Amino acid sequence: MKFPSSTIEKVVEQLSRFPGVGKKSALRMTMFLLNDDEEDVKRMADSIVELKTKTTFCETCGNVSDAPQCSVCTSVNRNRNLICVVRDFQDIISLENTGQYSGVYHVLGGLISPMDGVGPDDLTISALLKRVKEQEVDEVVLALSANMEGDTTSFYLARKLEALNVRVSAIARGIAVGGELSYADEITLGRSIQHRTPYKTSFDR
Amino acid sequence: MKFPSSTIEKVVEQLSRFPGVGKKSALRMTMFLLNDDEEDVKRMADSIVELKTKTTFCETCGNVSDAPQCSVCTSVNRNRNLICVVRDFQDIISLENTGQYSGVYHVLGGLISPMDGVGPDDLTISALLKRVKEQEVDEVVLALSANMEGDTTSFYLARKLEALNVRVSAIARGIAVGGELSYADEITLGRSIQHRTPYKTSFDR
Repeated sequence: MKFPSSTIEKVVEQLSRFPGVGKKSALRMTMFLLNDDEEDVKRMADSIVELKTKTTFCETCGNVSDAPQCSVCTSVNRNRNLICVVRDFQDIISLENTGQYSGVYHVLGGLISPMDGVGPDDLTISALLKRVKEQEVDEVVLALSANMEGDTTSFYLARKLEALNVRVSAIARGIAVGGELSYADEITLGRSIQHRTPYKTSFDR
Repeated sequence: MKFPSSTIEKVVEQLSRFPGVGKKSALRMTMFLLNDDEEDVKRMADSIVELKTKTTFCETCGNVSDAPQCSVCTSVNRNRNLICVVRDFQDIISLENTGQYSGVYHVLGGLISPMDGVGPDDLTISALLKRVKEQEVDEVVLALSANMEGDTTSFYLARKLEALNVRVSAIARGIAVGGELSYADEITLGRSIQHRTPYKTSFDR
């Protein structure tokens, strides 16, 4: 693609570094910036730089944070005896937005994947085991993706955690709420009937 | 959506201002920046700011440019007797990438649209007519989108230009009706400028 201005070419090149953004999308984004207010563009650029200079990772759980301890770990309303293990901080945002979880988190930083050369030592597993050993933890919830890497990691963690006499659970797998039964894949449908739950007619849950 | 860090919230808010970028995409882009090298992030932010401080618009044709005259208008290889009328500079990039056009351009800055309150006086039409009057122009090619606004604008321009005794043509309708110029593939767009046809203001075609 040829550009009438090297400045524009540079911006398109920079914006197309984003995942899922091609040259055409980057050009559309550049057009938007060209028509945008100079102050607003400067604000966007500043916020991007601040992302690298102002954010850090929570010393306890690995969640992204503005302070050495994240907002979940410092909250007085969270149950510290319940730890949910996730792959990265994006999963924490998803779980927090459900409003259904009151415990704390532990970010693994990845999943065990021998194909990609990621072993247990590359993740924050020893830090998790240390937390479980040193604090009074009742239950660890494994909230990892239902694929090969997620299942491998869950299995590995469950074995390690059981040795520490802590209850280990995993988030339920099944048909999505509102999902059509006939569109579900066989493995998901199979798991959802294996792990069926008692049906409740009252709403006292 | 709740965020674990106000810095992240600010970046997501800023990035979701881009057209076609929602909160989830913005979060994915933010994740990418968080994992990116600090130097690279700074380079991206700087390029965005430079876009507003370093670019200007060509005094002759309205194309985006690093100098008072754009690279097309200052090129010795371009035919100044042939002017292609486009909506915005993004269309110039698309046409330049076909490699099929050797004339110069004129950016209208929009299309006539009574619904949006855009009339002929809001566009650079008088500047175009001045160029045609003052220079030796053989032909004006109308390269506007094949939709209501584009057709209205083409019709208006053709009437005005015919009064100046200049040949008026339009890019071939190889482009799907209702299609945006910037989304067309290069071959279709290249052919459509090669096979431009005389523009008719009467309906005896």
